[in-house]
Amino acid sequence: MTKFVYLFEEADGKNKELFGGKGANLAEMTKLGLPVPEGFTITTEACTRYYQDGQKIADEIIDQIFDCLEKVEKKAGKKFGDPENPFLVSVRSGARASMPGMMDTILNLGLTDISVQGLAKLTQNPRFAYDCYRRFIQMYSDVVTGLGKSYFEDLIDKLKEKKGVTLDIELTADDLKELIEEFKALYKEKTGREFPQDPREQLIGAVEAVFKSWDNPRAITYRRMHNIPGSWGTAVNVQSMVFGNMGETSGTGVAFTRDPATGKKVLYGEYLMNAQGEDVVAGIRTPQTIDHLKETNEEVYNQFVEISQNLEKYFKDMQDMEFTIERGKLYMLQTRNGKRTAHAAIKIACDLVEEGLITKEEALLKIDPTQLDELLHPQFDAQALKKAKPVAVGLAASPGAACGKIAFTAEEAVERHNNGEEVVLVRLETSPEDIEGMAVAKGILTARGGRTSHAAVVARGMGRCCVAGCGELIINESEKTLKIKDKVYTSDDFLSLDGSTGLVYAEKIDTVPAQVSGDFGKIMAWANEVRRMKVRANADTPADAKQAREFGAEGIGLCRTEHMFFAEDRITAVREMIIARTEAQREKALAKLLPMQREDFVGIYEAMGEYPVTIRFLDPPLHEFVPHTEKEQKALAKEMGICFEELESIIKSLQEFNPMLGHRGCRLSITYPEIARMQTQAVIEAAIIRKRQGSNVKPEIMIPLVGDAKELEYVKAEVVKTAENIMEAEGVRVDYTVGTMIEVPRAALTADEIAKHADFFSFGTNDLTQMTYGFSRDDAGSYLDDYYKKKIFESDPFQRVDQIGVGRLMKTGVELGRKTKPGLKCGICGEHGGDPSSVEFCNEIGLDYVSCSPFRVPIAILAAAQAVLKQK
Amino acid sequence: MTKFVYLFEEADGKNKELFGGKGANLAEMTKLGLPVPEGFTITTEACTRYYQDGQKIADEIIDQIFDCLEKVEKKAGKKFGDPENPFLVSVRSGARASMPGMMDTILNLGLTDISVQGLAKLTQNPRFAYDCYRRFIQMYSDVVTGLGKSYFEDLIDKLKEKKGVTLDIELTADDLKELIEEFKALYKEKTGREFPQDPREQLIGAVEAVFKSWDNPRAITYRRMHNIPGSWGTAVNVQSMVFGNMGETSGTGVAFTRDPATGKKVLYGEYLMNAQGEDVVAGIRTPQTIDHLKETNEEVYNQFVEISQNLEKYFKDMQDMEFTIERGKLYMLQTRNGKRTAHAAIKIACDLVEEGLITKEEALLKIDPTQLDELLHPQFDAQALKKAKPVAVGLAASPGAACGKIAFTAEEAVERHNNGEEVVLVRLETSPEDIEGMAVAKGILTARGGRTSHAAVVARGMGRCCVAGCGELIINESEKTLKIKDKVYTSDDFLSLDGSTGLVYAEKIDTVPAQVSGDFGKIMAWANEVRRMKVRANADTPADAKQAREFGAEGIGLCRTEHMFFAEDRITAVREMIIARTEAQREKALAKLLPMQREDFVGIYEAMGEYPVTIRFLDPPLHEFVPHTEKEQKALAKEMGICFEELESIIKSLQEFNPMLGHRGCRLSITYPEIARMQTQAVIEAAIIRKRQGSNVKPEIMIPLVGDAKELEYVKAEVVKTAENIMEAEGVRVDYTVGTMIEVPRAALTADEIAKHADFFSFGTNDLTQMTYGFSRDDAGSYLDDYYKKKIFESDPFQRVDQIGVGRLMKTGVELGRKTKPGLKCGICGEHGGDPSSVEFCNEIGLDYVSCSPFRVPIAILAAAQAVLKQK
Repeated sequence: MTKFVYLFEEADGKNKELFGGKGANLAEMTKLGLPVPEGFTITTEACTRYYQDGQKIADEIIDQIFDCLEKVEKKAGKKFGDPENPFLVSVRSGARASMPGMMDTILNLGLTDISVQGLAKLTQNPRFAYDCYRRFIQMYSDVVTGLGKSYFEDLIDKLKEKKGVTLDIELTADDLKELIEEFKALYKEKTGREFPQDPREQLIGAVEAVFKSWDNPRAITYRRMHNIPGSWGTAVNVQSMVFGNMGETSGTGVAFTRDPATGKKVLYGEYLMNAQGEDVVAGIRTPQTIDHLKETNEEVYNQFVEISQNLEKYFKDMQDMEFTIERGKLYMLQTRNGKRTAHAAIKIACDLVEEGLITKEEALLKIDPTQLDELLHPQFDAQALKKAKPVAVGLAASPGAACGKIAFTAEEAVERHNNGEEVVLVRLETSPEDIEGMAVAKGILTARGGRTSHAAVVARGMGRCCVAGCGELIINESEKTLKIKDKVYTSDDFLSLDGSTGLVYAEKIDTVPAQVSGDFGKIMAWANEVRRMKVRANADTPADAKQAREFGAEGIGLCRTEHMFFAEDRITAVREMIIARTEAQREKALAKLLPMQREDFVGIYEAMGEYPVTIRFLDPPLHEFVPHTEKEQKALAKEMGICFEELESIIKSLQEFNPMLGHRGCRLSITYPEIARMQTQAVIEAAIIRKRQGSNVKPEIMIPLVGDAKELEYVKAEVVKTAENIMEAEGVRVDYTVGTMIEVPRAALTADEIAKHADFFSFGTNDLTQMTYGFSRDDAGSYLDDYYKKKIFESDPFQRVDQIGVGRLMKTGVELGRKTKPGLKCGICGEHGGDPSSVEFCNEIGLDYVSCSPFRVPIAILAAAQAVLKQK
Repeated sequence: MTKFVYLFEEADGKNKELFGGKGANLAEMTKLGLPVPEGFTITTEACTRYYQDGQKIADEIIDQIFDCLEKVEKKAGKKFGDPENPFLVSVRSGARASMPGMMDTILNLGLTDISVQGLAKLTQNPRFAYDCYRRFIQMYSDVVTGLGKSYFEDLIDKLKEKKGVTLDIELTADDLKELIEEFKALYKEKTGREFPQDPREQLIGAVEAVFKSWDNPRAITYRRMHNIPGSWGTAVNVQSMVFGNMGETSGTGVAFTRDPATGKKVLYGEYLMNAQGEDVVAGIRTPQTIDHLKETNEEVYNQFVEISQNLEKYFKDMQDMEFTIERGKLYMLQTRNGKRTAHAAIKIACDLVEEGLITKEEALLKIDPTQLDELLHPQFDAQALKKAKPVAVGLAASPGAACGKIAFTAEEAVERHNNGEEVVLVRLETSPEDIEGMAVAKGILTARGGRTSHAAVVARGMGRCCVAGCGELIINESEKTLKIKDKVYTSDDFLSLDGSTGLVYAEKIDTVPAQVSGDFGKIMAWANEVRRMKVRANADTPADAKQAREFGAEGIGLCRTEHMFFAEDRITAVREMIIARTEAQREKALAKLLPMQREDFVGIYEAMGEYPVTIRFLDPPLHEFVPHTEKEQKALAKEMGICFEELESIIKSLQEFNPMLGHRGCRLSITYPEIARMQTQAVIEAAIIRKRQGSNVKPEIMIPLVGDAKELEYVKAEVVKTAENIMEAEGVRVDYTVGTMIEVPRAALTADEIAKHADFFSFGTNDLTQMTYGFSRDDAGSYLDDYYKKKIFESDPFQRVDQIGVGRLMKTGVELGRKTKPGLKCGICGEHGGDPSSVEFCNEIGLDYVSCSPFRVPIAILAAAQAVLKQK
């Protein structure tokens, strides 16, 4: 028979999978001989079993619970429901990973109409006993039956009014007795049942509530945000109550072994005498700092300091501890590795290494790579933020904070930026034409689109703060107004955006620049020693490339040439190329673009030194470049010297039912090889220019959207012919290679054939995910919410590589590619390249590098190092 | 060293891969001791090598050619270029499969200014000799240098005018000499070189021309149409010339051992005395039927009859033979299995079995399944067609012939059909709203869209003739005019369409109904004995289901429920459902649809008896059902009792960037489970009705577009709950199953997970192909032409399963699915289910059934039988 319930002293403190974080650490503390109230842990397996059994706790589990309960009662010398000396417990959830989205604690379980009298007698403190009981009824009703706390608060308020008092503390024991009767009546009215007077029934009810809470909407959302699988389940900890509210020699508090905000090595915490845990949070009395305890109870203080130091040494990490003092005796209720700011995380990791407590490798594993984001973007001033009230919330699409006046179009943003104004660009959704406006805006806010919409992807690439898909916005572009919940904002109003939380503020909030401390560099250096994979950046401009280098990128993994096409001085030539009806016309337009592209590449090569630069050839469907309004089309027709009707019909012929699956990527180069030739010329000539300046650049030409080896073979032949001709004519040789994106499922499936013509593979996991799932990321917003709600998806496949589907294709692609060409260089350049769990997967399947937006390079560097350490 | 050139007696007549069809059969005839002029075959490997070497014939191959030439010269006792007794040859291409798109024959090669005199002397017939020479110059110039025949014809005409004669035959030897000089001068003028006077140079030039012809545009197109790989290459046959034009005792002809039009067992053919092959074709003199030879030269006739009978017995098939009589002696120049009509193919196959020449299995392999199409659709009256002239050509999208007056909208088609008119529906492109119009039209003609466009797919499903993507049409719907090459047609004009060739006629051409002879049934019966896979039909209506049963379908593999939604009496309820804002509103609309759906299913079950019926739940994006013009939208708003602006905004919110990858398939049922519930109710209640009538139907509910096991799990739970409730309430149990389409790449990749919840898999290879390639079939038209031209694609992946990409996913899907559930029923319901090569592939990977449109059921049945036979 499986053992589902363990006394703290029986449990394996290393096994968080089975006992959850809280249970495992209680077991550890018990074994260390620390003063931990007795108790037991119901395992995560019991939770899983509960769901398997159709949300029913099996009898054998209930039997085991009562077995353990009896043992604990015996040790405590008390009994559940005893009218003389009642045994009371707390019930707490405790998953493998800390999950603040889950249920609250239930304290004082075991109190009944009878046992409360025993507690009163025993403590000689009826007010205390009845206060415990009314708290318990309130908590139990809330947590177990979902009866909101506010019902009870209303009753308390009414009673206080009746009694003419203002504070809870002013209610007497008799008042509380009266209140308890009202609470129980309310309970009966709302649930149709009496408030349970059998402590065992209370206990099983509480355990089931914890199990249930594993699947409440908050928990599901939290799990999705933190990539926690739904299959893990939560453990339940049942622990003998100790009371911080038994008078002036009792108290309760929390403390950290180091400052969680700064990482400084000082005992940091606060406590409140004569209080239970919830009072500390309630904020009615101001807690004391932990130092104050030294003055009032030096013995307990010294004991606590010693324990906390031992715990830090034992767990080799900063600890977050809860304790209670009951009538002068210290009890430890919980310890765990403390949450901390990114800044503190880095400092603590470095300090622990310096103190000899951990190795560099262990230090690297202690930092959550995604947290580094905080350090790489401007943030709101913490003081200013406290006073601010958000007016709307969208998707946290690109981190950082931004503040500026509202600009409703990209042109407006550019113009006002040129006049020295700071603006935030507000759009229904963005399109490639908005690029320049996005570049000058402090932040971007859109009403539509998800975390992988155009706005989000481009903003992350630029390191620009972005809140996307904020459905509450009603934007009137022509009247230049923005309406949020009946309030109208204009170009004169300030907006502040938090791209890390998705919150939107209709006021000015000051920002502070990114803080990259010295310890940060140390961590990066250690990571560099450990990691196997290279880290590159996705960068389209010299400025981005420079930024990427500063963050440690070792080359460019994706330079999207089309982003260069939208600049005002180029778009005309681009459009001429698109509406050309003959190859000659097209070549004429391309000839105008050539010098500009060449100049772009020279700039990017300069920024990258001799690091490799992967240049992706023109990818988007051509209609993305043509104007969409009649007015603009008329102007273009005039400029091009053709009649409007002709232009209109050309533009119409470019429209597609499913542009994502349309005439784009290498398909463009196959129809119009002259485009590939022009781009090759620009790449190679720029490299020659740099070579003559003494820099030996290594351009890597990347052909997008290949699905069949012959596509690559054809385009590559054009590239090679063009490159060789130029190099021969110039008398200079350049080290260039030609590879392909693997972003179409068929490319992965036929990678052995494709590898014959490819010098490298780069997995374009954005498109690969779209096609493997058959999802258009632009359209998925309309149903993905239902998918999360109905537990069909646990995480967003556009953020985190779907390992069993998309990942399987990647693995196949790498294996087949290297079967043809052993050692074939393989990388990733999709958005996933900056996601730590995806980086780990890339390491596992043997990729040579990951490439991500410049602002995620440090994250990828750390994640790549962690991947190596975890694989060991 | 590889042997590239073989004498006829050295070659292996069974090895068509190496020697091509013509070469292999010449070898066979030589070995049978038939009178075959001496010669040799240059292998297909030499052709492949030619392309590998960058279109150059390797020296070793040239050496081998001249070696063999010498041997043949020796046997003939003649020499190349000999002024006394010159050796002349013919040069013919001969690929593995017969390819009429390739180069013509070159006759009389070896003639030069000198050797022509030898020929004249030897034959005592200078006119003959010079006629041979001028023919040779003409052919050689055309085939080898691409100098069109018309240049030479002009010169002949001028000479005839000058000489005052009207027939070629009236030109004297001296006239021809004069002509030859003019020919050679023309050759020099156009090519810059003298006409080659070295027969060896002529020979190598001709061989290279044959190799080159393998890759001319006609050949590429032909290969694509007939699925012949470009890697095969062609062989070249060089054969000693015999002359049918050496006087009145010489002649040349072609004959079949059976009538290729009817299959009747009679020697069938024609010949012409004193002529070379091309004269027979030229039509200047009327050839004699082969019977006539019996009267004029009974000995040769008897010899030919004996040979032809022996050849048929030897090759066990109807033979198509070429022969020449030189001065009374018979020579066999070629034999091959003759092309025949579908009707003849079936009769011959049955007769050969009856004659004991072949087994039933061999008979099945002799019939090209795609050819059966001819028998299953109406055709144009052959006599009437001869006089007709096409005015445009589009894609042959759905076979058969149709004739009717032009209808410009679906409504018009319905109205005029109801008035007894026969109409052809002409549309820019069709949409689901046109369904009713398509159903009543005799044929469908569209200006846009490919072979897998909506029009094509639906037309094939209905067995309706369709010509799609006819770019020459200029349609003005509002004025109801159709313009083709400056001629305008109106509703009063007739159009005739040939869906098998894509030709469009602007006149009335009578059609004749499909002919299904008794032998057809015999072949089907034999196929049924042999095949392992079941064959089902894709049918959405009782009428289609009935048709499918008549053609032998063993169930319905795909019943698309949405097609039932477009009928006039339903679309309003469908639209109400779509624009519903609450679940209650939606359920109200669904309640209106329920009885109609139930009735549909009862009808389909009735038509199918107790065969299984697979019903796919609602699949297309909802915006396909809403009206697209403002007028219709306004009418709908009024009908729905909401304001136009609200309706407009709802319709707008339904629009998607990539509808193909949007909110459709099972995603609809996840957002609106009430739709799945209504459809389940209709399926189960209809089955209960039939069960009470004594018919034990087996509905198979199929959930579309599943990409993740949890999607299926969720929808299936809704289906099962609904079905069980109904069956319990009604007290009747129905044998139903729930399965899924595998049409998203991820479904195939995670088929082991999905199989846990699926009773069957059905591969939706249309969508699977789109997503695996990242092609939208609606948009691919704009670039696929370039793909064929540039030899990137050899066949259309929407017609023929792409075995290395899409096929690999299918194989993975079957294997993973059966790993979880051994014996899991797997089928295919994409368009590919009716394509013989795809059917063969499905058999190979172990599918249990294929499903295709009713009119392709016999094709699939035969192909499924052939697959088993080929696998043996």
